[in-house]
Amino acid sequence: MSLKELQTAYLELQERRLALDLTRGKPSPEQLDLSAELLSLPGISNSIAEGSIDIRNYGVLQGLREARQLFSSLLEAPPEQIVLANNSSLSLMHDVLVFALLKGTCDSSKPWSKQNDIAFICPVPGYDRHFKICEDYDIRMLPVQMHESGPDMCEVEKLVMADPAIKGMWCVPKYSNPTGVIYSEATVERLAAMETAAPDFRIFWDNAYAVHDLTDDESPLANLLERTAACGHPNRAFVFASTSKVTFAGAGICGVAASLENVRWLLARMAPRTIGPDKINQLRHVKFLKDKEGITALMSRHRQLLAPKFEAVLKIFEAQLSDLPNVAWTKPKGGYFITLEVPPGRAKRVVSLAREVGVVLTPAGATHPYGMDPEDRAIRIAPSFPNLAEVQQAAKVVALCVKLAVVEQI
Amino acid sequence: MSLKELQTAYLELQERRLALDLTRGKPSPEQLDLSAELLSLPGISNSIAEGSIDIRNYGVLQGLREARQLFSSLLEAPPEQIVLANNSSLSLMHDVLVFALLKGTCDSSKPWSKQNDIAFICPVPGYDRHFKICEDYDIRMLPVQMHESGPDMCEVEKLVMADPAIKGMWCVPKYSNPTGVIYSEATVERLAAMETAAPDFRIFWDNAYAVHDLTDDESPLANLLERTAACGHPNRAFVFASTSKVTFAGAGICGVAASLENVRWLLARMAPRTIGPDKINQLRHVKFLKDKEGITALMSRHRQLLAPKFEAVLKIFEAQLSDLPNVAWTKPKGGYFITLEVPPGRAKRVVSLAREVGVVLTPAGATHPYGMDPEDRAIRIAPSFPNLAEVQQAAKVVALCVKLAVVEQI
Repeated sequence: MSLKELQTAYLELQERRLALDLTRGKPSPEQLDLSAELLSLPGISNSIAEGSIDIRNYGVLQGLREARQLFSSLLEAPPEQIVLANNSSLSLMHDVLVFALLKGTCDSSKPWSKQNDIAFICPVPGYDRHFKICEDYDIRMLPVQMHESGPDMCEVEKLVMADPAIKGMWCVPKYSNPTGVIYSEATVERLAAMETAAPDFRIFWDNAYAVHDLTDDESPLANLLERTAACGHPNRAFVFASTSKVTFAGAGICGVAASLENVRWLLARMAPRTIGPDKINQLRHVKFLKDKEGITALMSRHRQLLAPKFEAVLKIFEAQLSDLPNVAWTKPKGGYFITLEVPPGRAKRVVSLAREVGVVLTPAGATHPYGMDPEDRAIRIAPSFPNLAEVQQAAKVVALCVKLAVVEQI
Repeated sequence: MSLKELQTAYLELQERRLALDLTRGKPSPEQLDLSAELLSLPGISNSIAEGSIDIRNYGVLQGLREARQLFSSLLEAPPEQIVLANNSSLSLMHDVLVFALLKGTCDSSKPWSKQNDIAFICPVPGYDRHFKICEDYDIRMLPVQMHESGPDMCEVEKLVMADPAIKGMWCVPKYSNPTGVIYSEATVERLAAMETAAPDFRIFWDNAYAVHDLTDDESPLANLLERTAACGHPNRAFVFASTSKVTFAGAGICGVAASLENVRWLLARMAPRTIGPDKINQLRHVKFLKDKEGITALMSRHRQLLAPKFEAVLKIFEAQLSDLPNVAWTKPKGGYFITLEVPPGRAKRVVSLAREVGVVLTPAGATHPYGMDPEDRAIRIAPSFPNLAEVQQAAKVVALCVKLAVVEQI
């Protein structure tokens, strides 16, 4: 289409006064309905957990044994290496980092906040909420490019070996936010084995999409915790997961797996903050999800709702955008996002064009530290929340905006 | 009784192999049963809150409007000045303090952690978990003696006026932990009005026992938030409350009231940490407690279970300990604790004697910073958890141990 034709089509869109939102990776109401049973669990007569624990009263800082057993399959770690918390794994990541800032890790000579100018490695494109924590606490962010097998490991190895101020690294290792990449076995092995100048270097392994498949591909992820232990770096990894996109986004439970030494450290750090997590919500989840098979069965029902939305977006992009130079998009096998790459310098313009016709996208740049994508290329598409018809409509609008933004430039 | 008679009685106790615990202010199972209905709420068809909020999904950082309305009566502040969090007000206090350490308050020129040697005022005897947070983050603690009307205000005023390093003060203003004291109107007024050298001085007002009466005395507490605003120090107070001792100790909800400027500051600080609290538990509580009258009705049922236990302890102390010099105890009109004062240098001995015959008390000294009571006098008695017969038995043991410890010394 010519610029004129595209502009005419765009003006027609404006008149339709759309109100569609593809910004955040939120489950749809239909997905939340899959766990409706939770709303009346554990039930009036269920107040005692394993070990005669009264789930209504104080205590059990590490979390209920049966709930840690349930998380054992998500985190691929034994229950004694797991600590559970409340409804937000982001909070747990934040708190681990804050404890390290104020107190140091179990391998730190002093608190991170007392060491000058510490830094985290941030694979890009990545998750804006990870970057926001670093920004908030003035932690320098070192972007490293994501490839199909994970972050550029040569760059990561070079950085961490050279600079003891580099204390950590954010990773979403499976169905990465937003690229959908799964870290390869070689990548995981190199992360576990690499030498770091900082003795207290920590990988924040946010395995948010551990069981969130969109296809029949099994897509296994190597076990970082086991690899770090085997490589003589047992305390390197904190492995996070939650049921936010399994049961309820705002009222699930979350947990972290780590070495026994890290677990002891974390419990000692958490003890002044709380007497214990909400154990009722833990037992509620155990009663509903039951075990690994229960989780798998539920996730296949999520997939039935999610996969058609992803397919719809991909089909429309394929039909509308295949011929455009420098335009590409990911075809994720799981997770919550599609990353759309537009020609350099055009992402902000696409997002702005879409917003003006009522389709809200995540701000261009959000996938990069400080919200600044140096190439202005990456756009994160989150098709989970709107219904299928809305997703289709929104994808068509996005495609048109991409075409218009590209042709405008010529 | 002579030393010999006391020793004989003590040896008899040893043979009874008791296992009683008066350590922590935990509700009894019977108290928790009062809120059993919560275990199946909000119910399968209840997932939407005021403003069409889906309580299952992400968001609503400040907390549901109807839940803030419910907390409005506990915190005596309008809903817009309230922020709700998850199951632990201790966590909320911890986080406010940590945010001030890492970022500074809205009135700070720099983060508290970047200012040298900051200090908190700690009324003694006080709550060990408050002191533990200060200890953990190396915040100097300045003990100030509690009197019948609250902390020694002349001392408090002198300290805060002189030293800009004094950034905060812990208070349990109603049915104080562990003395049961209610801060008088004059005390509250002076706390609101006093001049502080630090422009970012903050009172952590832990109103944990706001509605926890044991008698018909109304025992009102002046409204600190209103007073600080009237005195031109609107940002001075953070007022905390929770339902931990209203519904479930481990699975309630908590909140904080503060000036609008403090609320904006807190929400900005919380935003990188979490997308929002567990809104299902908030709606669950609203459905169960309903309103101020609902809370009052429930608290009177708690009182029916708790008051006889307090009366039993007081009756036994009265009968057994009245004649002993330098032995005294509080007669609280609410809250969860009785403070027993024994002659100087005898508290540790009493706790040790009791432990050896199977009655566990809070360690002597726990009521003071660093667990050190300079006079070794205060013992915190928590009669809520055991049943009435056990409480009676335990109180008799404690009385005997006090007598033995006193006579031993002569």
